[in-house]
Amino acid sequence: MTNTQSNSQTTLIAIAGASGAGKSLLARQLCSRILGTRATQDVAIIHEDNYYYAQSDLTFEQRSQINYDHPDALEHDLLAKHLQQLKLGHAVEIPQYNYSLHTRKSETIPQEPGRVLIVEGILVLHDPNLRDLFDLKIFVDVPLDICLIRRLRRDMIERGRSLDSILDQYETTVRPMYYRFIEPTKRHADIIVPRGGDNENALDVLFRYLNHLLS
Amino acid sequence: MTNTQSNSQTTLIAIAGASGAGKSLLARQLCSRILGTRATQDVAIIHEDNYYYAQSDLTFEQRSQINYDHPDALEHDLLAKHLQQLKLGHAVEIPQYNYSLHTRKSETIPQEPGRVLIVEGILVLHDPNLRDLFDLKIFVDVPLDICLIRRLRRDMIERGRSLDSILDQYETTVRPMYYRFIEPTKRHADIIVPRGGDNENALDVLFRYLNHLLS
Repeated sequence: MTNTQSNSQTTLIAIAGASGAGKSLLARQLCSRILGTRATQDVAIIHEDNYYYAQSDLTFEQRSQINYDHPDALEHDLLAKHLQQLKLGHAVEIPQYNYSLHTRKSETIPQEPGRVLIVEGILVLHDPNLRDLFDLKIFVDVPLDICLIRRLRRDMIERGRSLDSILDQYETTVRPMYYRFIEPTKRHADIIVPRGGDNENALDVLFRYLNHLLS
Repeated sequence: MTNTQSNSQTTLIAIAGASGAGKSLLARQLCSRILGTRATQDVAIIHEDNYYYAQSDLTFEQRSQINYDHPDALEHDLLAKHLQQLKLGHAVEIPQYNYSLHTRKSETIPQEPGRVLIVEGILVLHDPNLRDLFDLKIFVDVPLDICLIRRLRRDMIERGRSLDSILDQYETTVRPMYYRFIEPTKRHADIIVPRGGDNENALDVLFRYLNHLLS
């Protein structure tokens, strides 16, 4: 690995890509395959979503108007600080986010410095200070119409949102922010994974690599 | 691996991408890292270039006019047949190509059925029958201007060709055939490697994977 921090005990893997591309699924699949043969503390997933700002100074109405697909909505400095702490072998307290209230929950969840930490989120390769911490940078590249289908299924069926509100948000922020902030980070990736969570061969390659790191 | 032939002793890896993207360099780097720890017969590279048709029925002038960036210039049937033979554990005789005379040399080179065979070339993912033989499909994705710089350096300095002839060929066949035939095969890839031969992290991931296959 070219990263100067690769001598550390903790390997940080970034998984970036559009909302609905299958980042979280890929992270879970990798994690689950590793946990089939290894100890629980060897691997963990950190979700960038949990680092949305608390915005406690704003009203609920104001928080509802925020563009959550813009990097300014995310506390990347805190995420970077936490990853640095984990690399140094220290546990951190990860904020938890309340999506209904658009703010942080009062509780946090402790995260031990696992040997492989997978950090997944739409903008994990955006901030240069954050980006430089990763030992391996993966971009999940899936056509936006496929991502939209997944969003529609997830947000309408699982979260009970209306078609209008999903499409309105998609056209207003999701799509333009993808092209403005997310897609440009693809050039920082070491590995691009097409077909997201439906790519057994890529999963196998990445699993064998992580397994090697842990062996 | 999802490929039904994965129980075979021989694993076939495809490396596709534009001319100048660094396919051959990636193949050599992988091979060289494997040979640092393994036996010579464990891994080999097969170049699609060697499967250009002999075109013995054409004159040299006629052969010089051929579009060598079009799939029709390549005997993919023979390459597929050879890979099937190698998968079955049989050695094959690989044709050798004379680029100055635009035809095959009279001699062939024997290829033993190694455990990992890397097949590199611009159109190795084009033909469906050929494509289906691969256990892992890699596409090296490098911006075309970077590929052009590499072609210019290689063809002018190493092969003594004129700038005019290189650019003329580039505009006439290399570029249009890339968009018509090569770029569309990217969607068949399991893994996309950006920055070709200048991507240590991707090289490391792929090396560890091949090393696992050989262990």
